[in-house]
Amino acid sequence: MENKISKLRELMKKNFIDTYIITKFDPHQSEYADEYFNSVKFISGFTGSNAIVVITMEKECLWTDGRYTLQASEQLKNTNFEIFNISNSETEDFKEFIFNNTKNNGTVGFDGKTVSFNEINKLKTLIQKKNIKLKSDIDLINEIWENRPPISSGKFIKHDTNFCGETLLDKLKCVRIKMKNYRANMYIISSLDDIAWLLNIRSIKKNSSFSFYCYTIITNTDCIIFIDENNDNKDILNELKNQNIIIKPYSSIENYLNNLNLDTNHTILIDSNKTNYTLYNLISKSQLIFLPYDITSSLKSIKNTTEIKNIKIANIKYAIALIKTIKYIKESINDFKMTELDVEEILINNAKKDENYLCQSFNTISAYNENGAIIHYDVHQNIPKTLKPEGLLLLDSGANYLEGTTDITRTISLGNVTQEMKDCYTLVLKSHIALSQVKFLKSTTGSNLDAIARYNLWQYGLDYKHGTSHGIGFCLNVHEGPQRIAFKANDTELEVGMLLSNEPGVYLKDKFGIRLENSILIKDYMKTESGTFLQFETVSYIPFDRDMLNLNLLDKKEIEWLNNYHKITFELLSPYLSSEEKDWLYIQTKQL
Amino acid sequence: MENKISKLRELMKKNFIDTYIITKFDPHQSEYADEYFNSVKFISGFTGSNAIVVITMEKECLWTDGRYTLQASEQLKNTNFEIFNISNSETEDFKEFIFNNTKNNGTVGFDGKTVSFNEINKLKTLIQKKNIKLKSDIDLINEIWENRPPISSGKFIKHDTNFCGETLLDKLKCVRIKMKNYRANMYIISSLDDIAWLLNIRSIKKNSSFSFYCYTIITNTDCIIFIDENNDNKDILNELKNQNIIIKPYSSIENYLNNLNLDTNHTILIDSNKTNYTLYNLISKSQLIFLPYDITSSLKSIKNTTEIKNIKIANIKYAIALIKTIKYIKESINDFKMTELDVEEILINNAKKDENYLCQSFNTISAYNENGAIIHYDVHQNIPKTLKPEGLLLLDSGANYLEGTTDITRTISLGNVTQEMKDCYTLVLKSHIALSQVKFLKSTTGSNLDAIARYNLWQYGLDYKHGTSHGIGFCLNVHEGPQRIAFKANDTELEVGMLLSNEPGVYLKDKFGIRLENSILIKDYMKTESGTFLQFETVSYIPFDRDMLNLNLLDKKEIEWLNNYHKITFELLSPYLSSEEKDWLYIQTKQL
Repeated sequence: MENKISKLRELMKKNFIDTYIITKFDPHQSEYADEYFNSVKFISGFTGSNAIVVITMEKECLWTDGRYTLQASEQLKNTNFEIFNISNSETEDFKEFIFNNTKNNGTVGFDGKTVSFNEINKLKTLIQKKNIKLKSDIDLINEIWENRPPISSGKFIKHDTNFCGETLLDKLKCVRIKMKNYRANMYIISSLDDIAWLLNIRSIKKNSSFSFYCYTIITNTDCIIFIDENNDNKDILNELKNQNIIIKPYSSIENYLNNLNLDTNHTILIDSNKTNYTLYNLISKSQLIFLPYDITSSLKSIKNTTEIKNIKIANIKYAIALIKTIKYIKESINDFKMTELDVEEILINNAKKDENYLCQSFNTISAYNENGAIIHYDVHQNIPKTLKPEGLLLLDSGANYLEGTTDITRTISLGNVTQEMKDCYTLVLKSHIALSQVKFLKSTTGSNLDAIARYNLWQYGLDYKHGTSHGIGFCLNVHEGPQRIAFKANDTELEVGMLLSNEPGVYLKDKFGIRLENSILIKDYMKTESGTFLQFETVSYIPFDRDMLNLNLLDKKEIEWLNNYHKITFELLSPYLSSEEKDWLYIQTKQL
Repeated sequence: MENKISKLRELMKKNFIDTYIITKFDPHQSEYADEYFNSVKFISGFTGSNAIVVITMEKECLWTDGRYTLQASEQLKNTNFEIFNISNSETEDFKEFIFNNTKNNGTVGFDGKTVSFNEINKLKTLIQKKNIKLKSDIDLINEIWENRPPISSGKFIKHDTNFCGETLLDKLKCVRIKMKNYRANMYIISSLDDIAWLLNIRSIKKNSSFSFYCYTIITNTDCIIFIDENNDNKDILNELKNQNIIIKPYSSIENYLNNLNLDTNHTILIDSNKTNYTLYNLISKSQLIFLPYDITSSLKSIKNTTEIKNIKIANIKYAIALIKTIKYIKESINDFKMTELDVEEILINNAKKDENYLCQSFNTISAYNENGAIIHYDVHQNIPKTLKPEGLLLLDSGANYLEGTTDITRTISLGNVTQEMKDCYTLVLKSHIALSQVKFLKSTTGSNLDAIARYNLWQYGLDYKHGTSHGIGFCLNVHEGPQRIAFKANDTELEVGMLLSNEPGVYLKDKFGIRLENSILIKDYMKTESGTFLQFETVSYIPFDRDMLNLNLLDKKEIEWLNNYHKITFELLSPYLSSEEKDWLYIQTKQL
């Protein structure tokens, strides 16, 4: 590492740069970026999902959040890196650090494509007091990164309207109607999952993301995509050309925008969080309208009837794989040695038997006992624990099918569970049921509803340090906005057709973790003099663990809910199970 | 009205003003302003509490909210006023109207003291595209308003530390600590209830507000108040002088600030909602720090132990007055003719028997049957209905005692109630109990908790179009921020010591309205590995109406809550009642 940092400092001197910013973002601010963009890992060795690095001639500093500070001190222990917790408001954030550690009239360098213009604009306001300049067109990391991995494009697949329910041209029509409302004559989409949704294309890659590197520009007449052609996507890009989509090379967007000679006669829509600083600079002379999130994000968050039908199918498919896995683990825990990692393998093998299975929708969390208390436990970054016939296994996983994306968590008793485990499980289940049953006024936001799940736990002095619910993509990102149900203020109203997770939990440090997660859809409830009311429909059916219930903590209505849920589970899944599996499921779903 | 408007237009011409803005705000953006400031009523005849008027040479327009649009069309029917609903996002707001109806390079005039600088700054951004100028130092209304009522100061009373628990000098110390955190060398308070709180002074006036017209400037060494001296406040102002408070005439603040020659070496704190545009202009050359609300607002929202002890006393005092009133109404409804207005009179007569009673804390809402469905029904603006021995009376009232401010609503059966009334009453009670019982994590905001009350109603397609809860002052404003429990996003965290209302309701148009309201205090619940948890303590004890309960809708825990509540009610109040009243209360509070 030290060698790399010395090399970087030499380059900084050569380029008259006093302070250099390194991120792990791609030019589209994706949640999962290609390894190519992980300059933070290259320069520091830190692998956490959230990080930013700032290098001056004297100091090297890394900012990450509370989930990763322990991991960071472990991974950076033989370096000179100082580690900062982003969530700690008493220490400098990276912008304040830059302000305090860059001399008057100094220069801050970075690759403008790897930072959102929102972040840089905030930095600008701060540093102007010291007349510090920005140099945003310089990727120094590239000059020292030997054998930098290539950007992978993956194998393209067309997402047929049998699955996704709406053609590219229909989607374009909807986008243009919204553009008209803003009186915009251009809309630039940077968000990769939005582009995949719009074009009805997915790309299968190793990191279970479906995205491919592409920008899209929509005008009243044209739709231009900036994407590199190769053998794996030629046919599908040709199909797009037949639909009058204009295709240009990925990196030509800069020249293209430059040549437009944009001025205030152009009104351009962009997402203020997804647009990188370089792109923003190219269009800043036009009239810009900053969207809180892309038009396409709000369109794709409302699932159409074909998607809804398919989401239910995908959830049945995954439930079958999961039930086979849970049965196997419970029955063979005494006979075979099995690790957290083996569980993932068994599960994936069961899931991939389906012909429309594409990949897992995220890295499986298979966490035994005390590992379950680490909310973002990654078995691949640790020595997998061997399961014993006692305690709890937290299994959070999901798959992508052509029919949609699943995301389900069950916490499974392996035997000999404590009363505390049962009580916590039952309280988490109460929270889960409370959210799944609630009816709510249209115009309710996720931060209004969050406490509906939590108050059952708060009563007992328990809480979970994550959101109750995130939006879920359709055969796309497992975390999808703009809707979410979480503590923090959020002004997205919950609407009919949105797909969300329902995942309350309890995590007791060094003991165990419990999370129970299903997917829920929003549908109509009733209209009255007081307004329009909505409700959730659960779409994931996997039994809750009977061995984990403290029935004294459940009221009559909750037991009714559970009995009904188990009844549907058996009805839905038994047709697809062997007679032995069916017998097992019958017992798991018996009425209480 | 037409005559006044012609006169105004003549003055506008004379002063080269194209568009004139008229509000009903005082220079402190108070909820209740003196009649002196009601220029809207003077020019239009409209009496609603929320309104803004804009006059051009061609048009006269009035903006108000959904509560008042009907009243406005009634009161303005013989004028040329166009009425706009503020809540209707499809019609122009007053700023857009000004932009669209003022010519290029035109001039918009107003009295800068009657508008917040926040509003005017938004207007500025909009109108600069047409190069429209602002003239903010002109009160044209004053020139045509003959016999304008004087600004009333009221009779001052000192709020003793036996009641309020903290001296002026202690409060100043706390304010200065907060000022230090902001590195500010001056803090200007415009908010009148904040000043009354800080100085431990109340002023008794007709409109049940305790405020007096005053600005306060606090520096590290001085506390200067700008207030007019008169015979009714001389003694108390002299006491302030003895505590080194500097007293200057109310209107001298403009000269005072002008003479300071403020520049960027001065860092001044102001509340961005309470500071008027004229004041802002006088200090805009300094470094301004815009507070979302005054430092004093957050200090006064946390009640101290003396205040808490007294709040409980005030609530017992008012409960006794209310119980006597309810008993009287129920027992004499068959024998005497009684109107909605009579009820208020009986209540006030019962309340004012207490030696520390000062006044009602707001205009009593006494609303019979269908009038109850009008959320802000004002019996003084209507012909009072005569009560009959059937249906429901909604009674929302409160008093100010030296021991604090009360705000309580009970809905009372007068006989022959329908099943629908009983069901709705019981559901509102469920909502009320749900909020009063909830435990919550410290850092929870009011918009997180709001749905805890509402979900019981949502289940049945019911909702109420008002907040669940507002902060309550201490012998001060009945509506006090910054805390509240409402649907709309709000980032004020709920903290130990805050006093709030708990007032869910149901309103069925042309039928009836039900609201059940107690005051609740926030106190500690428990500390665990998951964090610090808080809870509410109910401080108002008046029986809920047994004739109104549908016990099938209440679960075991809710009945337990109610029994316990009634047990405490009897214990707390019976010592202060006659034996006949005690017998009556005994029956009302019998265990279910």
